[in-house]
Amino acid sequence: MNYKMIKNILGWILIFEAIFMAVPLITAIIYSESAVISFIVSILICAAVGGLLIMNRPADTTLYSRDGYVIAAASWIALSIFGAFPFYISGAIPSYIDALFETVSGFTTTGASILTEIESLPKSILIWRSFTHWVGGMGVLVFIMAFVSLSGGQNMHIMKAESPGPSVSKLVPRVKNTATILYSLYFILTLTEFFVLLFAGMSVFEALNASFATAGTGGFGIKNDSINSYSSAIQIAITIFMLLFSINFNSYYLLLHRKPKEAFNTEVRVFAAIVISAIAIISLNVYHLFPSVQDAVKHSAFTVASIISTTGFATVDFNLWPELSRTILVLLMFIGACAGSTGGGMKVSRIIILVKSMKNSLNSLIHPKRVQKISIDSHPVDSEVVQNVYAFTVCYIIIFVVSFVVIAFDNHDLITNFTAVASTMNNIGPGLELVGPTQNFAFFSIPSKLVLIFDMLAGRLEVFPMLILFSRAVWKK
Amino acid sequence: MNYKMIKNILGWILIFEAIFMAVPLITAIIYSESAVISFIVSILICAAVGGLLIMNRPADTTLYSRDGYVIAAASWIALSIFGAFPFYISGAIPSYIDALFETVSGFTTTGASILTEIESLPKSILIWRSFTHWVGGMGVLVFIMAFVSLSGGQNMHIMKAESPGPSVSKLVPRVKNTATILYSLYFILTLTEFFVLLFAGMSVFEALNASFATAGTGGFGIKNDSINSYSSAIQIAITIFMLLFSINFNSYYLLLHRKPKEAFNTEVRVFAAIVISAIAIISLNVYHLFPSVQDAVKHSAFTVASIISTTGFATVDFNLWPELSRTILVLLMFIGACAGSTGGGMKVSRIIILVKSMKNSLNSLIHPKRVQKISIDSHPVDSEVVQNVYAFTVCYIIIFVVSFVVIAFDNHDLITNFTAVASTMNNIGPGLELVGPTQNFAFFSIPSKLVLIFDMLAGRLEVFPMLILFSRAVWKK
Repeated sequence: MNYKMIKNILGWILIFEAIFMAVPLITAIIYSESAVISFIVSILICAAVGGLLIMNRPADTTLYSRDGYVIAAASWIALSIFGAFPFYISGAIPSYIDALFETVSGFTTTGASILTEIESLPKSILIWRSFTHWVGGMGVLVFIMAFVSLSGGQNMHIMKAESPGPSVSKLVPRVKNTATILYSLYFILTLTEFFVLLFAGMSVFEALNASFATAGTGGFGIKNDSINSYSSAIQIAITIFMLLFSINFNSYYLLLHRKPKEAFNTEVRVFAAIVISAIAIISLNVYHLFPSVQDAVKHSAFTVASIISTTGFATVDFNLWPELSRTILVLLMFIGACAGSTGGGMKVSRIIILVKSMKNSLNSLIHPKRVQKISIDSHPVDSEVVQNVYAFTVCYIIIFVVSFVVIAFDNHDLITNFTAVASTMNNIGPGLELVGPTQNFAFFSIPSKLVLIFDMLAGRLEVFPMLILFSRAVWKK
Repeated sequence: MNYKMIKNILGWILIFEAIFMAVPLITAIIYSESAVISFIVSILICAAVGGLLIMNRPADTTLYSRDGYVIAAASWIALSIFGAFPFYISGAIPSYIDALFETVSGFTTTGASILTEIESLPKSILIWRSFTHWVGGMGVLVFIMAFVSLSGGQNMHIMKAESPGPSVSKLVPRVKNTATILYSLYFILTLTEFFVLLFAGMSVFEALNASFATAGTGGFGIKNDSINSYSSAIQIAITIFMLLFSINFNSYYLLLHRKPKEAFNTEVRVFAAIVISAIAIISLNVYHLFPSVQDAVKHSAFTVASIISTTGFATVDFNLWPELSRTILVLLMFIGACAGSTGGGMKVSRIIILVKSMKNSLNSLIHPKRVQKISIDSHPVDSEVVQNVYAFTVCYIIIFVVSFVVIAFDNHDLITNFTAVASTMNNIGPGLELVGPTQNFAFFSIPSKLVLIFDMLAGRLEVFPMLILFSRAVWKK
């Protein structure tokens, strides 16, 4: 393990966090809010600690794959620990564990909140919440890599550990350039949404918050009723953008390079098929609850987009929907968005690989001597990738089951516990019953909150980094 | 595919089913019940169809592994279709789908019932229900193989397809002898339980039924309140036997050959650890519901043994227990018994392999160049077995999710649906809420019942045979 490099990168994380906090600081100044002090103090702490950590650039910048995982996990933890300061110092969230929960929920783009009343919070605090989504969505290490060459040639190990999906491909040979392209696309799409929402009637402040939260597929709102009280135009616009941010950003890059066939690959087509079927079934199942069919379809589409993109916004209390709709929503929670998007969940491409591997295993039981390979978009899938998907699935299930049992000690009902873990591990936000869209996570005990914090980080970093950080094998000399 | 051999073996299945029906027939004669006619008719049908099918012994008895899977699935379906006749003809179950559900539930040792009132049923019908458990527990094909040489040297493919666990080992070189040893152990253990229960105060008829149902880890009772109204001595005896029948029968063989170290292998030790921890946690969680600590421990132990052995007997309505206990019971449903026992579930050995493979995957991410192998009881686990466990897990999850969504169309609550699928796929019997221990499965729609029938068979045959039977690849020329 290259401890010096890890220290150095953690330093950069904090320096950049200080820079990120300029966004709420400026907001606080504009609206002359008293929270300005808490941001100045937090920025000074981040800059001071970060500055200390990057003081001596290590001579040996070699990183191995394990360093990448440890860096990803440690960075996200550091980011959250320091990112919670403004909430705590300003008094917006009096308990530090709660502030940490909220911050982790922000950066991991979960959007699960421990706050009951958000409309009375200072605007600077609200924008910091939303902005953590934006930073976490595309990845903070990817962001830093767009500006700083962290470790010479081995940035790929870091990018791999932070980016979602079963296999991470560089768009262009250099990781730094790939990071710049991804963030440019991300920035442009976010800006587009901002203007669309402005045009649809939101104020600048509202549109900024909503764009950050949609782009990162986070889901923190600035109103107690989420997106419920906004106009249909705004709700429809957000539906579309939630889906756009669920698609692999490589597809946008390919579209820009006039490769529509490669852009609309199997994953995108399967994603579209799932979204359309889910909207159809749920619309049929809930249309009697709404005054018109259009309304039913609008709310069904919003909810499906919100859950499968793992954003977690709500226009209705879908916890009160019929059981069939609730079942489908729970299923969508696990499927999640496309790989290489800002969305969470298991990712559509992993589901495709799992289903294909099922067919493949049956075929090899039927014809034991025929060696078959899974292929997607007429490319054979590397057996290493398939093994990685298996390993992901097993680790995912084990974390899920352990979390489910540990939070059961709080003695809430099974659906609350199940969907609380599903919602945090898949970085969605709301679940069902006590963690439904009109509720929040405040009532959990501190041990349960710590478990759910772990789950949000494990979900965002796709299991391995968090498990490796806490595994003995990596710390053995 | 060797169609002639498949036909021949299906014939033997029906011949043996006719022989099995002698047990309820004799019961009907002893108690001079009118159901005697329905058994005679069913026996004649089975014998006639079976006789026709085995008329010409095929010249080519070669079987491949795929034939083994198809034979296992087809045999169990045939066994259930014909086994349902006595219930249907006697009028005990007026709907044929319900009769089929009950029979599949019997043979697969699930014990999920569509009957609301069982005490008024003829004794011959009750003993046929219990006896299907006993036949299904150790496997009907294994039973036949103890008497008939089905396919020369290739019996192993059939045994593999029917026997539970990630890897099936022959106790002795010949499959036929292995089958005889297994059934002898099974017979002796069942007989022991029968005498223990007689001694503890049951009547001969009660002890026979309870022994069949415990031995097969089935769970059909002959009283509406399951085991609730029996004495503590009987309840404790059944607790012990449920656990004994959850242990790999190889362990008993090894014990008889004075190899205690090999008998108490990792799987048995992990199983014991899970059972003891579950009893401890649940006892603490429920002791306030009972008059004494002894009572709490007795009922906790009974329930834990009943669920993890996948028997499904009940002495209390554990659906009313606190959420923590319910959570642990749901978890135990999935874990299930040891491989090579009569119990269902995923099997403890598969869980051990999954947990070890998780550690292994993390290690290989940490040290990509070090090749590591999983080992259990200081024997390396074949990578083929690990792959098979992965494939099993993926297929299991996919069947589970599809079933869960399909039965959601009935619009019952999520916990009912989830535990109904969990209970049938793991061959337990009761679940929670509407399928709790005091309820039954009668209220499901016919499509849902068909799905649950599939799940019971898929669970008992461990997924692959049922999927292969319905896969296009196996029927292509």
